[in-house]
Parts: sequence; structure tokens; C-alpha cells
Amino acid sequence: LLGVTEDDVVAAIRRLVEPVPSRARVTLGIGDDAALWQPSRSHRSAITTDMLVEGVDFTRDAMSLEDAGWRAMAANLSDLAAMGARPVLATVALGVPAGEIEEVLALVRGIAQAAARHGLAIAGGDLSRAPVLTIAIAAVGEVRASHAKTRAGGRAGDVLAVTGELGSARAGLELSRRGGRPDGAAAEQALQAFRRPAARCAEGRFLAASRNVQAMMDCSDGLSTDLDRLCRASGCGAIVEALPVSEAARAVAALLHEDPRAFALAGGEDFELLAAIKPRAFEHLAQRFRARFGRPLHRIGYLTAQPGISFEGNPLARTGWEHFSA
Amino acid sequence: LLGVTEDDVVAAIRRLVEPVPSRARVTLGIGDDAALWQPSRSHRSAITTDMLVEGVDFTRDAMSLEDAGWRAMAANLSDLAAMGARPVLATVALGVPAGEIEEVLALVRGIAQAAARHGLAIAGGDLSRAPVLTIAIAAVGEVRASHAKTRAGGRAGDVLAVTGELGSARAGLELSRRGGRPDGAAAEQALQAFRRPAARCAEGRFLAASRNVQAMMDCSDGLSTDLDRLCRASGCGAIVEALPVSEAARAVAALLHEDPRAFALAGGEDFELLAAIKPRAFEHLAQRFRARFGRPLHRIGYLTAQPGISFEGNPLARTGWEHFSA
Repeated sequence: LLGVTEDDVVAAIRRLVEPVPSRARVTLGIGDDAALWQPSRSHRSAITTDMLVEGVDFTRDAMSLEDAGWRAMAANLSDLAAMGARPVLATVALGVPAGEIEEVLALVRGIAQAAARHGLAIAGGDLSRAPVLTIAIAAVGEVRASHAKTRAGGRAGDVLAVTGELGSARAGLELSRRGGRPDGAAAEQALQAFRRPAARCAEGRFLAASRNVQAMMDCSDGLSTDLDRLCRASGCGAIVEALPVSEAARAVAALLHEDPRAFALAGGEDFELLAAIKPRAFEHLAQRFRARFGRPLHRIGYLTAQPGISFEGNPLARTGWEHFSA
Repeated sequence: LLGVTEDDVVAAIRRLVEPVPSRARVTLGIGDDAALWQPSRSHRSAITTDMLVEGVDFTRDAMSLEDAGWRAMAANLSDLAAMGARPVLATVALGVPAGEIEEVLALVRGIAQAAARHGLAIAGGDLSRAPVLTIAIAAVGEVRASHAKTRAGGRAGDVLAVTGELGSARAGLELSRRGGRPDGAAAEQALQAFRRPAARCAEGRFLAASRNVQAMMDCSDGLSTDLDRLCRASGCGAIVEALPVSEAARAVAALLHEDPRAFALAGGEDFELLAAIKPRAFEHLAQRFRARFGRPLHRIGYLTAQPGISFEGNPLARTGWEHFSA
């Protein structure tokens, strides 16, 4: 099974479940950040799920269990943000090793803190014994039918933009892996970005409200992987001209003798949003974005009719997170 | 932590998450079969989640992976049935050990079969590596605001009824545990009930449509445990006078020299519904139930003002499934 990607497995699953007679009210199914359905004519609800497994998606030495819980909820909030949806509620299913009641309550504290930040209610859950701590959250949001964005609406010529600088979370991961407690503001900022990432819910709703935003998704698996997904869904290629690397990523990369661009391209979980925007509308939208959020909407390149992604004149390979690669 | 029950852990979790500013539109939170929210004025959506973990909730020798997937989906469908909700869609998060792509596709086949039975669409999901196969489903249904039932509406004097005979699934589990392939229709029926339980979605919607049904829940953790939950939520006790034990449970219990009543009281996952019904309305409702479903609505006893549950004159202890007991 060498070389099987997560997307390959998802495609196989999709073939198994799509013969199911889907109700007409499910308007967007497997393959985007979240699914959409239609509880009534004017409303859309969005639902997403993420599973985090101890030893795979988090380890107890790299972060506290509160941080692991926060990150699990942030991943779901980010998927809702990518649809332009407002978070409403979530369910939380937890797998708990024998005797680890305090540990699971620590996870829940982190989950509840991230949820509270965005006004999302924890409305239900389930507990099971499990060999390692396991968190599976499903989160529901709401979006106007006319505002919902998918990965598939991008067109050749669209400007590609991200809602913030990239690489901080990966820099924090690398610092955590190497242990110790490095000094300095950059290290602190990187660790914070890794442990308490901020989902871009307000930014997602702002961009979703614009008819000039044609496609949107989050970069939770790394820009190189997620841009490839947006391009494939939109039937386009892309040229990446500029990569907004965070100061924290630069400083930590220098310390560790790594390439900061790799942190920005391959590191997911900065939870910035990636959007494809009609070219003539970009400047005005970016001005409004800066006025609203006090930081730039970063232009990173544009979509092309020709498939494939290039960065600095070379083909850009997927280097993001793959659960199912060799 | 000896003696900590799942309900104790849920109560601790509830204290952690309830300070979160819950949106007014979440109309029922933690502690029932599913949560309810209000996507628009006249609509209610219900959401539930269940996690199944290999080695805890299922084993590969007792059932096929297709069966495990079916059961995971049936547990969620049953929670929606208990609210009186019509199934709409679900998300499926799967934890997958290295190299087990075929195994996870087998799980998905079973999940999709159970979903198709009830017209529920699989709308999204997530994959993660995990030490053992792990299934976390979140399912969404819809119910009219006036039809939604909770565990809390029961009143002293209400008739307690279940939608079918109990004990078959537990009998099937016991047969599976002992291995071999016992002959006979009863054994076959018990194994089928264990491996391919039927969620009572149609029965749930039928009962939910009656104003005389005051409380409803499913018996997925065993009648003795779940009746205790309904009683506590409704501020009542109960007297159990009759226990409808399935023929399959009787036959298998005789074979194994076990008490068939224990199968019916402690065995969960028959997925029958338990309802509290206004006493004067019971006979008429039971007649309509029989006309509609071709089998009886079984009267098992009644709710009392006095707390505590008695069965055959003795206090009835919780003997159902507890993930967190010693």
C-alpha cells in the first residue's frame, strides 16, 4: 500500500457511500472542508468532523492535554470557517484509556476553551474505553445559502490569497520535538501558534460574504497539499509567486538550520484560510480585510488553466501531512 | 477510580462545558440521546455521536468488520429514533492501524448499508492513524419542534413500554464469545440481532407524533441502566412488572444455562425504544402501533413518584454496559 494517500482512501470511501440514496437536502457531500445541507429553504447547515489520536496527531510531551483538546476543536472550527459558516454546536466523542478520567477532563477543558472563543456550544458526546486518548469532534455551523464557499469555484486568473503568515505552527512543532524551552519572543510565538492555533472564523465569514471570493478552504494539511486540492477541485493549476513566512518561522528555522519556506509550505495547522478571488476585486477586498482585521490579506499567486503548481519556477510537490503515505 | 460510572464522567464534563455561552438556538444539550438545536423557527435538528473502539466495543473474532460498521451506524440511528427524528446525514471519523485500508473499507461498507436502510447520507468524514480500528460517527436528523421527545417528560403513573422483545442481541453476543456456530433458528436469530441490529427509526417517529408519549429513549446500554436514566431525568421511580424476553434469548439462555431475564435487563444494543405514555392513552396507542408495525408495544410497568426501580418486588440494580466501572 506504499504510496496510498489519504485522498485515495477518501475516494474509495466515497465510491462505497455514494450509492446511498442521499436526500436532496444534502447539497455538498464528501470531499470539501465540511458538508452542507438544507434544514429549510433559506438556511444551510455545515458539518465537519476531525479525529485526533494520541501518538499520531498529538503527544503528551509536546503539549498539554488542554492544548490537544484546543487543537482538536480548532481543527473543526477551521473547517467551518472555510465554508464561511458561523459555529453553532459540536459533539465530542472521546476514547479514554483505563483510569485516565483526569486526563480526559483536561482534554475537555481545552476543547471548551476553544469552543467558548467562538461561541460554539458543546451539545453532546460519547465516551468509550480506548488504548490511547482519542478525540473525535463533529461541529455544526450555519451559513446563508448564497455565502457558502467550496473548494471548487476557482477559475483561471483568480488571485490566490491567504489570511495570514504561514509556518509558525510548524516551527512550534519542531521546537517541541527537540525539547527544551528555547528563549525569545519568536520561539514563544511559534509554540503558542502550535499549541493554541486560532481558527479564522471571522475571516471566513468576511470572505464568504463577498461574491468575488470564488473558492475557499483551510490550510490545515499544509499549503502545498491544500492548494493542490483546491486546484484539482476547481480544475485549475496555480503559480505561487510569494510565500508569506511568519517572523517566528524564520527565527526558529534559523535556530534549527532549516528552510523556513518548508515550514510555510508543508506545515499545516496554522489554520489560515486559502481563497481564490476574482482578480479585479482583489485590491479592494484586501483593503477592506486590512481595515477590518488590522493585517494584510496576502496575495500568494494565481490560478492557471494549465494543471500543476509551480513555485519559484519549479513544480511544487505535496509536502503536507499525509496519514497514509509510506 | 473504582466505582466511577460513565454518568459520573459525563456529569463532570458537563460542568466543564456548560459555562460556554451556548447559543439560544441549542434547545437540548448534554445528557439525552441526542442534542437539539433550532436552525430556523419551525425546525429542530438533532445530533448524536457514538464512538466504537476495536477490542472494547467490538472484536474481529465476534463479528465481521462490515457488522461492526453496521452496529456503529445503528447506534447513532437509534439515538435519532429516540428523539423522534428522521435521519438526514452523518459524518464518519475513522482511526486506522497502519496498512489496514481494506479493513477500513469493510467498516465503511457496513456503515453505508445501515445508513442506506434509513435513507441517511454519509456527508463527510476524517481519517487518522490509530493503534486499533476506531469509528466515531455523528448523525443528524430532523424533527418537528412539537414532536421532539426527551428522557425528562415522564410523570408518575405513566405506562412504561418498549417497542420490542429484549435480550436477543445479548444472547448473540454470548454465543459469539463462546465461539463455534450453534445450529438452530434461535441461535441464528440471536446472532443476527447482535450483528445487524435494527434501529427503530419508524417506531420512534410514530411514537414521537403522539402527544401522549411523554418521554422516550433507547435501551442501548441495557434496560436496567437506561430505565434508571429515564427515571432520574423525569424525577420518578418505576415498577417493572413484565419483561418481554425474546424467544431467541430464552433458547440461547437455556443452551448456556444462563438466566434469560439477565439478557433482557442487562443486554443493550437490542436498540428497542423505551417510552413513558399517559396511562389512559396507552391501550389505543398500542393498538395503532400493532396495526402499523405488526407487533405489540410491550407494557413493562409504570412510573412512580417514589424514586428507585423495583422488579419482581426487589430493587433493580443497573446491570447494563458501563465503560467506566471497575
